[in-house]
Amino acid sequence: MAQVLVTTIPFGTHNRKPLDLLDSLGVTYEINPLGRRLTVAELAELVADAEVIIAGTEPITAEVMEAGRNLRLIARVGVGLDNVDLIAARERGLRVTYTPEAPAAAVAELTIGLFLSLLRGIHTANLSLHEGRWDRIMGRRISEVTIGIIGTGRIGSQVLRGLTGFGCPRILVNDLNPRPDLLPELELEWVDKQTIYKQADVISLHLPMTRETRNMVRRSHLLTMKKGALLVNTARGGIINEADLAEVLESGHLGGAAIDVFANEPYAGPLADLDRTLLTCHMGSMSVDCRSRMEIEATEEVFRHCRGEPLHNLVPGEEYEEQERR
Amino acid sequence: MAQVLVTTIPFGTHNRKPLDLLDSLGVTYEINPLGRRLTVAELAELVADAEVIIAGTEPITAEVMEAGRNLRLIARVGVGLDNVDLIAARERGLRVTYTPEAPAAAVAELTIGLFLSLLRGIHTANLSLHEGRWDRIMGRRISEVTIGIIGTGRIGSQVLRGLTGFGCPRILVNDLNPRPDLLPELELEWVDKQTIYKQADVISLHLPMTRETRNMVRRSHLLTMKKGALLVNTARGGIINEADLAEVLESGHLGGAAIDVFANEPYAGPLADLDRTLLTCHMGSMSVDCRSRMEIEATEEVFRHCRGEPLHNLVPGEEYEEQERR
Repeated sequence: MAQVLVTTIPFGTHNRKPLDLLDSLGVTYEINPLGRRLTVAELAELVADAEVIIAGTEPITAEVMEAGRNLRLIARVGVGLDNVDLIAARERGLRVTYTPEAPAAAVAELTIGLFLSLLRGIHTANLSLHEGRWDRIMGRRISEVTIGIIGTGRIGSQVLRGLTGFGCPRILVNDLNPRPDLLPELELEWVDKQTIYKQADVISLHLPMTRETRNMVRRSHLLTMKKGALLVNTARGGIINEADLAEVLESGHLGGAAIDVFANEPYAGPLADLDRTLLTCHMGSMSVDCRSRMEIEATEEVFRHCRGEPLHNLVPGEEYEEQERR
Repeated sequence: MAQVLVTTIPFGTHNRKPLDLLDSLGVTYEINPLGRRLTVAELAELVADAEVIIAGTEPITAEVMEAGRNLRLIARVGVGLDNVDLIAARERGLRVTYTPEAPAAAVAELTIGLFLSLLRGIHTANLSLHEGRWDRIMGRRISEVTIGIIGTGRIGSQVLRGLTGFGCPRILVNDLNPRPDLLPELELEWVDKQTIYKQADVISLHLPMTRETRNMVRRSHLLTMKKGALLVNTARGGIINEADLAEVLESGHLGGAAIDVFANEPYAGPLADLDRTLLTCHMGSMSVDCRSRMEIEATEEVFRHCRGEPLHNLVPGEEYEEQERR
């Protein structure tokens, strides 16, 4: 059995450097042999003698850690930690690292692409024309709507930076830790979430999955939004209640929604039956450069671990505290 | 019969002001009764006693002008004039106005939306998920590719402005009239078209339809482009040879193409059979604000014409010269 189990895919396909790094260590490694998101049972079997998991978003639970008796390090490729049971890891003396900076730029660009597609009906027109219809869609420009950004951390603030060239007339922002000095040229308005729900034409979520954000956007919030408003989620599935969203979209209250992340992935559900939804497959970080950087940074932690060097991006204490409060 | 024939649609639906302006003049008007792009024969019949046509992109030929014996003004809603026979208009003493500034911002935003969709496979993933598949697509960021912009007039320069927030590493630009002072923060490289074909990863056309640009991008140019390159046309159909584009896309040489404008509209043809194409329905100017501005500006010319006031945006001499050279 391999010493390093790589559960995330793709891995090393667009840039060989992570594989070269593992080769240079002389360790054996195995890359997710099923080519899809693994279940707890599959992980428990594959983890066998592994000392390290290079992990994606699959569930790294206490049960998986129990099965991995030799496990010492979980190196997460990405930033979200809702899939790793940090408390169980700490109890077993397992260290956990992540790559907090790497995905932000790619997620932000996808988000702006989704804004523009929703606002102009690009996805709807494309579907029409491929089906032989010619339905010209009257849209709105970024520069004629109010944008609402909930969460202005690494990704939210990169989204805002990407918007600087568009001449946005009004941007509402919300964060637990407001930063009034953020991008002064955009004249951001720091408001509460209710104000964003009520006043924004395009609302985008950039929050981690926590006890507070799970199921945060429900039927009542969706109905608070303006008629025709557009909603974008490239953060984590489950922050928006998907059944409520499908129902409110179907009622015609919202103009559309672009969803990249789902409570259960791969997604299959009612959102896929609506023309008004723009759906992507958890592709926020899926650009060659960001994905490579994430894989390399995670593998460098493995490298340091094997060499006995200090790790660079150990998951900070507040992530553990957040899970303790669950 | 109406004194003002409005052939372009939609008209006055998102903003009533153009209709109010016509009402205030006390003129009778008729809006395109067929609700689609009109043919020469249909135009010739409808134009009957009209003194003014408020025109879209349908063919305003010598035959149409001949049928419109009372015609005095053609007020074009938009900027392209390839559909209006300017020489025939001049011979008959007809004045022609257009709205050169109004569409630029909307076309530019659509263009950037198409860039992001193509680069990240947003349209492809959306199609997959709506068909029940989960195909994660590895894309590229704007900030990891070379952008090539052919034509840096009103629209091309707005596209460049929109890109300022994305940290583009290299932007190649081409124009008959290079402006080395344009957007210095982007460090544009002014090059010939061949260099753009050979070196850019994303190529976007922002040119009028002229004798020089008709059929400008053919098989040989497409094959000169990098393998996997992306091509965007929001300018005029017919600048790219559509049959050649379909063939080269099918061969797998290009990574994709986003096409908003077609030689014959509504479009039906082989590009619609390819998943790799992102197709929209000549929607460049179709944002509520830009479309309203175009309709209002064109109707204001009608207002001035009826009041005997000087017109503001008579089509300039070089547009006539261009048509003389055909």
